[in-house]
Amino acid sequence: MEIPLVEIAQFLGCEIEGDKNAVISGVAALDKAQCGDLSFYVHQRYTNQIKQSKATAFIISAKDKEQFTSCTVIISPNPYRDFAKVISKWFNTFIPPDPNVHPTTIIGNNVEIGENCSIGAYCVIEDGVKVGLNTILFPFCYIGKNTVLGDNCILHPRVTLLDRVIVGNRVIFHSGSVVGGDGFGFAPDPPEGYFKIPQIGWVEIADDVEIQCNATIDRGMLGATRIGRGSKIDNLVQIAHNVEIGEHSVIVSQVGISGSSKVGNWVTLAGQVGLVGHIKIGNGTTVTAQSGVAKSIPPNMVVTGSPAQPIAKNRRALAEMNRISVLRKKIAELENRLSSLEQPDK
Amino acid sequence: MEIPLVEIAQFLGCEIEGDKNAVISGVAALDKAQCGDLSFYVHQRYTNQIKQSKATAFIISAKDKEQFTSCTVIISPNPYRDFAKVISKWFNTFIPPDPNVHPTTIIGNNVEIGENCSIGAYCVIEDGVKVGLNTILFPFCYIGKNTVLGDNCILHPRVTLLDRVIVGNRVIFHSGSVVGGDGFGFAPDPPEGYFKIPQIGWVEIADDVEIQCNATIDRGMLGATRIGRGSKIDNLVQIAHNVEIGEHSVIVSQVGISGSSKVGNWVTLAGQVGLVGHIKIGNGTTVTAQSGVAKSIPPNMVVTGSPAQPIAKNRRALAEMNRISVLRKKIAELENRLSSLEQPDK
Amino acid sequence: MEIPLVEIAQFLGCEIEGDKNAVISGVAALDKAQCGDLSFYVHQRYTNQIKQSKATAFIISAKDKEQFTSCTVIISPNPYRDFAKVISKWFNTFIPPDPNVHPTTIIGNNVEIGENCSIGAYCVIEDGVKVGLNTILFPFCYIGKNTVLGDNCILHPRVTLLDRVIVGNRVIFHSGSVVGGDGFGFAPDPPEGYFKIPQIGWVEIADDVEIQCNATIDRGMLGATRIGRGSKIDNLVQIAHNVEIGEHSVIVSQVGISGSSKVGNWVTLAGQVGLVGHIKIGNGTTVTAQSGVAKSIPPNMVVTGSPAQPIAKNRRALAEMNRISVLRKKIAELENRLSSLEQPDK
Repeated sequence: MEIPLVEIAQFLGCEIEGDKNAVISGVAALDKAQCGDLSFYVHQRYTNQIKQSKATAFIISAKDKEQFTSCTVIISPNPYRDFAKVISKWFNTFIPPDPNVHPTTIIGNNVEIGENCSIGAYCVIEDGVKVGLNTILFPFCYIGKNTVLGDNCILHPRVTLLDRVIVGNRVIFHSGSVVGGDGFGFAPDPPEGYFKIPQIGWVEIADDVEIQCNATIDRGMLGATRIGRGSKIDNLVQIAHNVEIGEHSVIVSQVGISGSSKVGNWVTLAGQVGLVGHIKIGNGTTVTAQSGVAKSIPPNMVVTGSPAQPIAKNRRALAEMNRISVLRKKIAELENRLSSLEQPDK
Repeated sequence: MEIPLVEIAQFLGCEIEGDKNAVISGVAALDKAQCGDLSFYVHQRYTNQIKQSKATAFIISAKDKEQFTSCTVIISPNPYRDFAKVISKWFNTFIPPDPNVHPTTIIGNNVEIGENCSIGAYCVIEDGVKVGLNTILFPFCYIGKNTVLGDNCILHPRVTLLDRVIVGNRVIFHSGSVVGGDGFGFAPDPPEGYFKIPQIGWVEIADDVEIQCNATIDRGMLGATRIGRGSKIDNLVQIAHNVEIGEHSVIVSQVGISGSSKVGNWVTLAGQVGLVGHIKIGNGTTVTAQSGVAKSIPPNMVVTGSPAQPIAKNRRALAEMNRISVLRKKIAELENRLSSLEQPDK
Repeated sequence: MEIPLVEIAQFLGCEIEGDKNAVISGVAALDKAQCGDLSFYVHQRYTNQIKQSKATAFIISAKDKEQFTSCTVIISPNPYRDFAKVISKWFNTFIPPDPNVHPTTIIGNNVEIGENCSIGAYCVIEDGVKVGLNTILFPFCYIGKNTVLGDNCILHPRVTLLDRVIVGNRVIFHSGSVVGGDGFGFAPDPPEGYFKIPQIGWVEIADDVEIQCNATIDRGMLGATRIGRGSKIDNLVQIAHNVEIGEHSVIVSQVGISGSSKVGNWVTLAGQVGLVGHIKIGNGTTVTAQSGVAKSIPPNMVVTGSPAQPIAKNRRALAEMNRISVLRKKIAELENRLSSLEQPDK
């Protein structure tokens, strides 16, 4: 495929500086790009790759222009997003399957499937399910009783949505994810053991959510577990019963969120973070990787450590710890000086 | 559904205080309850929700009666368990499928399936499998060679039990769980790489165990990996080869237990805890969330941190750390005082 | 089965000391072995089990001979590997299924399947897939478009390889593993939310790799995610987009490796380790369990903690912390002595 750079710039609503006749045939990272590729630059981590890059053109911010003199560039207010838009339009490798219901799919009673859907081989759709328009189920998907899927959703192979999961539009589920499993609720009943609390709630997933591979989202015990609009849940994340996640929050791989905790909007929980139950993370807060959060956190904080604390406080604490050996030496010195005073004759 | 409260109290063997003619039509948490709902109270975290609650009746402990004056209550020795019993009897949303073997299920040779079982669509049951009475397999379950399932088990959609997994009665497996995968055993054989140790052991799962979504339990290298009676294994937990877990232990989400470690009875491993291999956790011990356990722990301890230590010791250590800046200031003050003594003329 | 010990010794190219007429009928750990079993010894952890062991013979190192006087032993340069070789040859419980393509398997267009393969029930193989010789797919495997599998691979039940995964020879995938899911890439685009970066890269898995249950390996955003020859990936591990792992590295359960990080050869990442993105772990380095690595690590280090640091430095830091209370007492003592000097009359 050969795309004139001007067509790309026009699509993005951006200006070209440099060779306006350039033609693009691929996309690549700075260091891997070949002649014909479009690349992008957003992070100073890659500054030293600019000079060597063989890319034909770059999408960059206006503020980085000086580093790209004698290059052909598209000036963008958001280069990473605009690079993604170009991939989406011309270079996407995801090709939706044709609308079809594969004959091996088993469909229960009172199921409604919207127009233009594609249901792959060996899916099982239980009674009372509703599927919106243009939604795609790849093979081996399981849709439990009375679950509702909106329009334009994509379920990659082997997604499990159990009973009564309510899903909005444009939601993407990746392989191995399980939504609506029972919450982990048991009442101690010694000496007999634990008595299972039936988990009779449900799960609600708003528009534009994406849930990655092998993540698990449990149904509420009573009421709902909720994932808000635009939030993204990475591989192997655990979301317990009655958790509520706001809008546009990013929950990175292997995070675990315990029961009934609430995460605000535009929150980032970095990899392997753990949250205890029944706490709130305020809007705009970031929790750094591997942190353990045991208390509610106000909005717009950056917290770190286990137990998590504001990042500046954590840095001071680490700095204090590194000063212990200095303190030890000072004390030894004071002891010597004091001994000299106490025994002036020696 | 309308259930007279007296019928509920009778079922629980408990007394009503308040309106003995009350009628219950649902169950809900304190803050979500509407007129007609039965609710419950066990934790002071929710004390401030009592007054506003619209529930028609509450299951509570005798000790909490004063907080519920002018309310209708059922007095219970274990309110949480009794609330669960009420849900189980009248409000459970889990409805077992009718006994049936779906025609798409593939069944090997020498398979025995007990009376009254339900085997869903697209299951695969390999040679030599035995299944007890009343056991339910939802769609997409895989049962490996010579695996044995007891009576009244439930396998939610997409459970994988590999070869020679021995399962008791009333065991529940949730979607995506995998039992009997090879342990992670490789003998270093440089410079060629690692030589795979064949994992020729098996897995034994006792009565009343519950295993949640996407958890993994590996087979023994030689001999068994064992999960004891009544223990509960949460989502995304990893149990390595030859681990032995006792009775009524609770292993919370994303815990990892390394090979050959032994966990006692009534142990709690909170979320994201890690255990090294070849250690023992004594009966009744609790390990707090994200802790890393590198040594055996005696019974009835509460340990925390990485490396884990008794919680009181850990708190002291944290308190000491917070005092470092105080020590620094004291040392500075001592230096000044000492200088004054050393140079009295200044 | 009865195997003369001399036949075993000959197969291993090792010498017997003791009863050269011994006959072996099983394999077992030291403490579980019965008469007729072959066992092995490599670790002083088990020294106290030697005397009680009922094993008929042991595979041991020459250096341990003194502990096995009056026993029958095979002297091996690598007892653990050689014990594994014996299991593999005579006692392996894994019996490959007969070559066959099950009639329920759905195979797309332009698929090439090599001779002697076994494809189990309810597999789905999409267009353009190539499978080498002698490769085994157990039931429920999904192979995405244009994915390539080499010779002698084993896919246990319910493996998901998505589009364009390039797999070498003798690679083993365990149940629930997912390879080729989309990387977790989203460009912030406030206030609208995040814009999905299409993940148009692929995954390359070299010869002799083993990937355990429910592990996830994402495809590159651009270019490849790579797992080098002989590396082993344990249960529930997360490998993000564009990660590159070298040869013969061992990635233990629940490790998470963030995007674009590079792990060298013969590296060990112990359980629950986390790596941030865009760093390098040098050849031969070990990261201990639960450590969090935020910076690149040179070759042949042992690092520990979160943030990870060389193990000696970490031990010193822990030792310093344990000395804080000692410092506090010394300071109090100095204060007293200083007060005495300041107020000599008291």
